[in-house]
Amino acid sequence: MKIERFVPEGNLLDARNVVAPSKIICVGRNYADHAKELGNETPSEPLIFLKPPSALNSHEGRIVLPPQSQRVEFEGELAIIIGREAKNVGAGSWSDYVLGFACANDVTARDLQKKDVQFTRGKSFDTFCPIGPWIETDLDPAALRITTRVNGDVRQDANTRQMIFSCGVLVEFISAVMTLFPGDVILTGTPAGVGPLASGDTVEVEIEGIGTLRNVVA
Amino acid sequence: MKIERFVPEGNLLDARNVVAPSKIICVGRNYADHAKELGNETPSEPLIFLKPPSALNSHEGRIVLPPQSQRVEFEGELAIIIGREAKNVGAGSWSDYVLGFACANDVTARDLQKKDVQFTRGKSFDTFCPIGPWIETDLDPAALRITTRVNGDVRQDANTRQMIFSCGVLVEFISAVMTLFPGDVILTGTPAGVGPLASGDTVEVEIEGIGTLRNVVA
Repeated sequence: MKIERFVPEGNLLDARNVVAPSKIICVGRNYADHAKELGNETPSEPLIFLKPPSALNSHEGRIVLPPQSQRVEFEGELAIIIGREAKNVGAGSWSDYVLGFACANDVTARDLQKKDVQFTRGKSFDTFCPIGPWIETDLDPAALRITTRVNGDVRQDANTRQMIFSCGVLVEFISAVMTLFPGDVILTGTPAGVGPLASGDTVEVEIEGIGTLRNVVA
Repeated sequence: MKIERFVPEGNLLDARNVVAPSKIICVGRNYADHAKELGNETPSEPLIFLKPPSALNSHEGRIVLPPQSQRVEFEGELAIIIGREAKNVGAGSWSDYVLGFACANDVTARDLQKKDVQFTRGKSFDTFCPIGPWIETDLDPAALRITTRVNGDVRQDANTRQMIFSCGVLVEFISAVMTLFPGDVILTGTPAGVGPLASGDTVEVEIEGIGTLRNVVA
């Protein structure tokens, strides 16, 4: 089933988007070839960071390049949308807590990410978290082709089976740290092929069984 | 004026606490003596990271030590509570966007912070962000004594005038990256003297002109 919009009851944070999360948890270096392209080791356990809900962007929404950065890059990713409050969830029952899946773009100011070491500033600009085009609820995320195109050219082409830590391991690991609430989002990491965006570019993240998230860079 | 609870309209995230933020932005290494005690350089611009709203804790709430960490530390801090939507705010008008100030404890699993390099996991456990005991609206935060006590012993004793980046500079810098919403919280960094917490400890953060935030470790 396609869900066009999921706003947990009482959450008015941003009802323009496909989802209104209380938090967005991201996973770094979850595809070995991407860790390698940025010169990083493959991690022994998931590496997590956060994007603020104010960074959310919609399908067809404009990605705005901030003046503080000279290099903004796309990162196509599979998003997990949480459906039930989750704390200390076992990897065996993780899917009971998931509403569905969407495409996401973990837009990143690469120069600021490198300068700060902490990822937060480079990942947190307004419009830097497009999620969409909808939430697909009937999907096994274990082996889905994921591609990112810029102006129609394929830049990332991988499969979710290449993830170092599966969706189940991620939900177990993250829910052992923090309580997940309905609407919360986990971005599961990006494959190799990340690269820069320029004003006027159209960037698309397509995931098999979900659809295509499309954004224009302003 | 003391505000006992500030829940922005429509925000049901967690009405048990003094404030219900859509995000909590923290500033690292904002007191030179604390940067030095952890072996870090003094930053040339603010270093920001995020704690999730699920980490919020109340005055008198229990801080729960997670099994993943062998070293959980206190970090007493001044919290800025945002009162109006803020984007690209100039340092000269920053106080127009602020509701008030509170005491906060940026509880940190120091071992996980060091292991991950990214601060997120070590700072994000449930109960790791006590804020309170209320919000004080009539206050100039420029030169306030800030002390942290563990079981009555003074462990941090500093003054907000020692902050490298003032509250105004922080609001300007952060609001140039991300839109701030009413209820959002900025933790302004901790002075020297951080140290471990053990089960049964009582930790208090007292700020001149505000009051004392008290929590017991479970």
